[in-house]
Amino acid sequence: MKHAAPTTRPRVVILGGGFGGLYAAKALARAPVDVTLIDRRNHHLFQPLLYQVATAGLSAVDIGEPIRKVLRRQRNVTVLMAHADRVDTAGRRVLLAGGADVAYDFLIVATGAVDSYFGRDEWRRHAPGLKTLEDALTIRRRLLSAFERAEALDDADDRRACMTFVVIGGGPTGAELAGAMAEVARHTLARDFRRIDPGDARILLLEGSDRILGSYPPELSDKARQQLERLGVEVRTGALVTNVDATGLEVGGERIDSRAIVWAAGVAASPLGATLGAPLDRAGRVLVEPDLSVPGHPEVFVIGDLAAVYQDGAAAPGTAPVAIQGGWHAAASIRRALTGRPALPFIYRDRGSMATLGRKAAVAVIGGLRLSGFVAWLSWLFVHIFFLIGFRNRFVVIFEWAWSYLTYQRSARLILHEAADEGPPRAPPL
Amino acid sequence: MKHAAPTTRPRVVILGGGFGGLYAAKALARAPVDVTLIDRRNHHLFQPLLYQVATAGLSAVDIGEPIRKVLRRQRNVTVLMAHADRVDTAGRRVLLAGGADVAYDFLIVATGAVDSYFGRDEWRRHAPGLKTLEDALTIRRRLLSAFERAEALDDADDRRACMTFVVIGGGPTGAELAGAMAEVARHTLARDFRRIDPGDARILLLEGSDRILGSYPPELSDKARQQLERLGVEVRTGALVTNVDATGLEVGGERIDSRAIVWAAGVAASPLGATLGAPLDRAGRVLVEPDLSVPGHPEVFVIGDLAAVYQDGAAAPGTAPVAIQGGWHAAASIRRALTGRPALPFIYRDRGSMATLGRKAAVAVIGGLRLSGFVAWLSWLFVHIFFLIGFRNRFVVIFEWAWSYLTYQRSARLILHEAADEGPPRAPPL
Repeated sequence: MKHAAPTTRPRVVILGGGFGGLYAAKALARAPVDVTLIDRRNHHLFQPLLYQVATAGLSAVDIGEPIRKVLRRQRNVTVLMAHADRVDTAGRRVLLAGGADVAYDFLIVATGAVDSYFGRDEWRRHAPGLKTLEDALTIRRRLLSAFERAEALDDADDRRACMTFVVIGGGPTGAELAGAMAEVARHTLARDFRRIDPGDARILLLEGSDRILGSYPPELSDKARQQLERLGVEVRTGALVTNVDATGLEVGGERIDSRAIVWAAGVAASPLGATLGAPLDRAGRVLVEPDLSVPGHPEVFVIGDLAAVYQDGAAAPGTAPVAIQGGWHAAASIRRALTGRPALPFIYRDRGSMATLGRKAAVAVIGGLRLSGFVAWLSWLFVHIFFLIGFRNRFVVIFEWAWSYLTYQRSARLILHEAADEGPPRAPPL
Repeated sequence: MKHAAPTTRPRVVILGGGFGGLYAAKALARAPVDVTLIDRRNHHLFQPLLYQVATAGLSAVDIGEPIRKVLRRQRNVTVLMAHADRVDTAGRRVLLAGGADVAYDFLIVATGAVDSYFGRDEWRRHAPGLKTLEDALTIRRRLLSAFERAEALDDADDRRACMTFVVIGGGPTGAELAGAMAEVARHTLARDFRRIDPGDARILLLEGSDRILGSYPPELSDKARQQLERLGVEVRTGALVTNVDATGLEVGGERIDSRAIVWAAGVAASPLGATLGAPLDRAGRVLVEPDLSVPGHPEVFVIGDLAAVYQDGAAAPGTAPVAIQGGWHAAASIRRALTGRPALPFIYRDRGSMATLGRKAAVAVIGGLRLSGFVAWLSWLFVHIFFLIGFRNRFVVIFEWAWSYLTYQRSARLILHEAADEGPPRAPPL
């Protein structure tokens, strides 16, 4: 079964509907091509706000938007919810789970990254990462359930373990998550319990290197640490985790009992990259040509977290702006190829980075500016609202933030169990 | 382990945080008692809007509110997330899963109803009911995934099966769900697919008796049927389902292939009722005294869907108003008992009932008035917004409804898989 309809126009297949894939598809809106965007999920996820879903500040719906809905007016795009198993670069086709394939003239691979446990995959079930909405809902469930359990328990040690939350990894995700967890404990839940004081909760942020937010200037790492500590987060640097199990973890010889641990310590590239037959770096990312194409395959582009892009001697970070600009670039290269023009090298424009740690607490690097505190926090708010997709989402997120700023409440405090359904994630059987 | 703190005030235990239990707790706000409200869930659920979560119109967060949050200012209430296994009426205590117990002086049992498959429990996995948020998310996933699968399939029969949706049971839940499904197919998804036309979807509403909405006057059943048919729902009355399996169902000898079937055909009382040692009716509901107490136990009240309340020769319906009024009545009886006054009989005031079927399509009985169409629909909107708990929820729901009215869009169109978590629903281990 072939999925691309018979056509005389060049067929562009995009794998992944994240920032890279979605912006690439949009950038091809007026190109004389037929685009097929394939994703296992039906939704684009605004990952920068995922930690807010994990900490009950936003609902899953607020930061996910159906890919079809985003692209429904773009008539040259077909969206297919399916699992891409591998790429046959020689045969110019993508093989889908279930045996079907999709032929392409140009391919954009934008399947991103997955959590990496550095060979300790057995830690995953005790310390989920934060990559998908399901991850976020799992963390939300564990966070909120831990307080419920503590309220119901009599034993002081058990209570303490229930009220100890550990975030492993002091990058932006880990720092944002720990800060938000502290706010939940100190403010949101403050008056809700009768037998425990949620403010007694201990929130640990463990970082293996000597400072958190390692990709920021050292002065901002310091500011971030101070802001987190003021929120009540215990920040430990040089902290190497040696074991994680169902009841806690070991760090530097010390045992810490905890029932809610989150992994934010490392990512690896999506395994699809390995099927391209291209050289990979240590994290599994594809070592692309300067124009983001795969060596020997100028018709195949790799963008976003899956691509190892080096610029000025450093690897571009795994962020949304890099993915978006990569998507634009791949789309532009395809347009150029269609008119016989050579590809241009990809130049990533670093417009800055920002991480928010709590109410009026954030750090930001914008151009030459280094900001922290209230100004950084305000900038963060505006940028994130601006890039959020969908009017409805922007409106509701602004409302939720304003509401939560005024009341210290968080609206998404539901403990939902997994629905009793037929099994694991399934793309359509093709 | 005892969970009620040492106290000289009478201990009131409420089982269930639905409409009955929650309103009973609120009605005891100024009573000189210590209240413990026990629920397996952390949230009160606004069940009348559950079908809108199942059909992607609202997000789970919009209709669920943490019970603790609702009651956080009421200092005489302790909320406990736990599973009540049974009631020891002789020993005046509730036994929780895990072995702990909670002693009471007064008990209000408000654990509601569960889906009943009339002895065919094997149908449950193929045809989930609509009782919890997890149920609603399961139905949403199946509904949306069915269109995704159809888009990906080539075989016409498979496509047709994917685009056939069956709702079993023509009561208010079934009728509302079928109407909303038709709207999703005809309007929301209209422009999203390239290979299928979602408008081709077939939505069947199967009712065993001779008319849908059997609790309404026959003329409104007719109106409802007309409105549903106008929306594109195929309504079949006298339709007895004889089998349900993974690929479809059998009704009156006919085989219908379908990948998304919903059960709205019957409920049974929560099994906790059977542990009270009281007489039950055929549906397992407790045959209570006129004051809602259990025969021989004036200190134990049963309210809401779990109670069989007969009035003017007919059973009171399993609706939110009956549960709320029962909660008020049980609370009032406890206050009376505290001051030595005898209990009064419960008199249910029927303020009407209403069901909405789609955009400007509804039926309502309010006092002597029988309404249908736009006026009924408007009344439905106001009543449901008014009773929804929480300012935030009201605001967001009004926004979602206005947005969806203007754009025909539905914001919660995410296909979320069950989170890979540690197992089945768990209350805290006590």
